[in-house]
Amino acid sequence: MTHCPDDLIALAHRLAEAGGAAARRYYRTPVAVDTKADESPVTIADREAESAIRAILALERPEDGIIGEEHGRERTGASHVWVIDPIDGTKSFLAGRPIFGTLIALFRDGVPILGLIDQPIVHDRWLGAAGRQTTLNGAPCQIRPCPALADAVLATTAPDIFSAAELTRFATLQRATRRTMYGGDCYNYGLMAAGFLDIVLESSMQPHDWAALVPVVEGAGGSISDWSGAPLRLESGRGDVLASGDRRCHAAALELLAEG
Amino acid sequence: MTHCPDDLIALAHRLAEAGGAAARRYYRTPVAVDTKADESPVTIADREAESAIRAILALERPEDGIIGEEHGRERTGASHVWVIDPIDGTKSFLAGRPIFGTLIALFRDGVPILGLIDQPIVHDRWLGAAGRQTTLNGAPCQIRPCPALADAVLATTAPDIFSAAELTRFATLQRATRRTMYGGDCYNYGLMAAGFLDIVLESSMQPHDWAALVPVVEGAGGSISDWSGAPLRLESGRGDVLASGDRRCHAAALELLAEG
Repeated sequence: MTHCPDDLIALAHRLAEAGGAAARRYYRTPVAVDTKADESPVTIADREAESAIRAILALERPEDGIIGEEHGRERTGASHVWVIDPIDGTKSFLAGRPIFGTLIALFRDGVPILGLIDQPIVHDRWLGAAGRQTTLNGAPCQIRPCPALADAVLATTAPDIFSAAELTRFATLQRATRRTMYGGDCYNYGLMAAGFLDIVLESSMQPHDWAALVPVVEGAGGSISDWSGAPLRLESGRGDVLASGDRRCHAAALELLAEG
Repeated sequence: MTHCPDDLIALAHRLAEAGGAAARRYYRTPVAVDTKADESPVTIADREAESAIRAILALERPEDGIIGEEHGRERTGASHVWVIDPIDGTKSFLAGRPIFGTLIALFRDGVPILGLIDQPIVHDRWLGAAGRQTTLNGAPCQIRPCPALADAVLATTAPDIFSAAELTRFATLQRATRRTMYGGDCYNYGLMAAGFLDIVLESSMQPHDWAALVPVVEGAGGSISDWSGAPLRLESGRGDVLASGDRRCHAAALELLAEG
């Protein structure tokens, strides 16, 4: 079984510190907002956070690949590839909501072996690593049982992320669950890994959005896949993500999504 | 001009402390969830937080009226009436998101003269009081200029709160603004009062949901009304709320809502 070495975990923590420091510097200050090609906002905080993370990787892991949301791809054919979203939830960051996150993932030979979600204002940090149980601020955490969809709390960041066809399938799942929460970005997946939510459904995700979530969710006993149940892949080009705490919820949700 | 006395402000802070302590006790613990007649969830944390607030009022202001979300109405004909939502955003509370809030409002002769929004995990506290500028954690705060709807960031807790007719009007406003954020409950109004959001549109609000928001928003230079532009009234029976930072946004949004 694959295992994530301690030194890479320690490095991931330092990367998160560096990214979080940049985010804190600009949190609740009036920063200029640029709009990217996909219409999403970006600020100096996103760019400086990613630059700070890349500076450490350049020094300590110069041969590793990097896929970053703001500064692009380097050496993606390397055995180790870091996938970075310096501020996931830039809209929340800009609005002064302390539920955005810095996402750090590490792939080894195409397999995600480490994922870290850091909320640098509240100081919540989830770490998922191959061969270990997911931790929240150092304490082991796990998903909660939820045998029936009818009892599940569903979360999604915004209905606007869905295409019309996806919205129909989301609505089908929503009707089958107990209640729906909106907003939250990466934070929802961490809360699910800690047993406070049952299902997260999203689409239009990029690898930097989901890569860190995989080890966090799986290491807490949860499931994460695309809407067809297939594993998320760096090069698949798909952006649909379903994550569930209880695997019975995951199976039932996949069934509904297939019908919808 | 009406003015809110210092001793009542000091009391409101103590009420928030008491409510927040109860909320913190149960935050991210597995609490049992009951479902109320309106389908909204309620927990022991909501009930204990309101009981703690009412115990202080019973000692210090036994002649004042109280309207509380969980424990009902008393002496609503009194000159001073406290309106309490011990945990606004119970769904966020249950999911472990630190963006719920304790809401404390005081009406004098039917006019809201004090409003307090407290987030007891992050320790964000907004205070609005008649005759004073709104503060966030003791520092004066104010709305940001946003002359044009096209530049406005819109927030709403969930599209599910809207009726079909309201959803059409929400969509009209959404199309006219820059971007939309979901989730957030009372926290959105505080962030708007601090200049990080421009418009909040909601419906299905009860007096305990909106009462504290009025002095906070108005004391920061913002506007808050129903969707027709009329002031929010304890006994109106309406639950539609539009709040805007820049009054030009408020006027333009009201115009669109009237057409929609």
